[in-house]
Amino acid sequence: MTQTNLHPFDLAMALERDGPDRYRGTTSDAYWNFAGPFGGYLAALFMQAVMRDERRLGPPVAQTVNYCGPLAKGAYSIVARIARGGRATQHWSLELVQGEETLATCSIVCANRRETFAHDVARAPDVPPLDQVPVTTAARGLPWLSAYEFRFIEGRGPTFGVTPDPANLGPSRTVLWLRDAPQRPLDFPALASLSDCFILRLLQMRGNMVPMSTVTMTTYFHADEAELAAQGTGALLGVADCKRIRANFHDQQMELWNADRTRLLATGIQSVWFKE
Amino acid sequence: MTQTNLHPFDLAMALERDGPDRYRGTTSDAYWNFAGPFGGYLAALFMQAVMRDERRLGPPVAQTVNYCGPLAKGAYSIVARIARGGRATQHWSLELVQGEETLATCSIVCANRRETFAHDVARAPDVPPLDQVPVTTAARGLPWLSAYEFRFIEGRGPTFGVTPDPANLGPSRTVLWLRDAPQRPLDFPALASLSDCFILRLLQMRGNMVPMSTVTMTTYFHADEAELAAQGTGALLGVADCKRIRANFHDQQMELWNADRTRLLATGIQSVWFKE
Repeated sequence: MTQTNLHPFDLAMALERDGPDRYRGTTSDAYWNFAGPFGGYLAALFMQAVMRDERRLGPPVAQTVNYCGPLAKGAYSIVARIARGGRATQHWSLELVQGEETLATCSIVCANRRETFAHDVARAPDVPPLDQVPVTTAARGLPWLSAYEFRFIEGRGPTFGVTPDPANLGPSRTVLWLRDAPQRPLDFPALASLSDCFILRLLQMRGNMVPMSTVTMTTYFHADEAELAAQGTGALLGVADCKRIRANFHDQQMELWNADRTRLLATGIQSVWFKE
Repeated sequence: MTQTNLHPFDLAMALERDGPDRYRGTTSDAYWNFAGPFGGYLAALFMQAVMRDERRLGPPVAQTVNYCGPLAKGAYSIVARIARGGRATQHWSLELVQGEETLATCSIVCANRRETFAHDVARAPDVPPLDQVPVTTAARGLPWLSAYEFRFIEGRGPTFGVTPDPANLGPSRTVLWLRDAPQRPLDFPALASLSDCFILRLLQMRGNMVPMSTVTMTTYFHADEAELAAQGTGALLGVADCKRIRANFHDQQMELWNADRTRLLATGIQSVWFKE
């Protein structure tokens, strides 16, 4: 396959080994946000570094990314250290740097997973099937939005360019079908990125833009390789909500379900900073 | 005040400065679990290191602790680096070490918080007042359980020593009043510790002991100093649940509400490893 035949996500995930615990790469315009790449892209890069590392124990079960500052376009390095390894779990500590500046830190837990007692507590919302929900046209000016297919069912979010009404709060919850555009088989870096594909709740609810950004995001991967393979290029059902907004911060939480809504592939939370 | 008059939590939080970005301390038997201190104690130690550090920007808004291995009784060191500082947020990267071994890693985000638009999305469950819910007698043999007062309202959890019935699952949700025992004014290290005071959901639901431990925990602090001061020594209303159990892991989530159930002080999630 020539490079031009690669999916934009695979092009964006290209990392070169640059030492025993170091990778280097170049930012991708395809996942750009207002200032710097959108946060899911950085989560995916950290995940990609661990997934391709020969020291990895098994599938990832948890990831926390701390967003310290916006990346500039161009070269970056990822430092990937194993803080502690064992037979059951393995703890990674990672940093993304440009020059002397740390722009993101990350911890990833990988594990040796076997079949055990299993029980599903959460249930997916009852929603119309994928083909009955129209695809939303992406907002202009934000490249990363064009890298995903969004089909909103509940809590569509603001339309950029329309006069906002911050006094009249919209719903805090969003339910939507989403997947990579163009379609691509699901893997852990893609799932890490999809975990950040929900509009920030403050923007969702108030509809007006103020300076805001995710400061930290934690994702738990309930799926293993077999569940990702079964999902293939199917759409994921996403659910997002938040609990409290105050004093420059709000939380938000999310669930990502598989195409037939029977398996909860990932859950997570993030903390969002905003300024008024 | 002499040392013997100090609250056990304050004795357990004693850290000595041991360099520009290093602290040292000694483990406290009062917060011991089966093997090593209970996880909330380590979260509190990391928080304590940042809270007493003169480099701190403002109150903490988020903390992730990765539990890499059990501490031995005795001396430990905490290394506390600022990965990135700014005027709005400050990112800390911490490690807890004994000898050459990293036993826990932690990231903490501190921030400059001001009054802004605020909105409460989540609601506290409707529960009987504190004085109408009896205090649960702590299980024997686990010192940390005696460091807290638990008053279970829903999902009491297993009673150690009673024959378990793993085939007959108990409820996944727990609602309880809880606070430090003896009572102590709430601060951020105590809130970090209380965030881990929920029985692991697998044990809660199945009732039988298997090897299990928290591998990573993330807590968001919605409260600032003023809300903690208003809470004082009042009991917190805790709510815990989980979403999915499978392949050696399950998640759990929690909320901690203030004494009059009007303010959500903290929310969080953790990932729990178990073996069969």
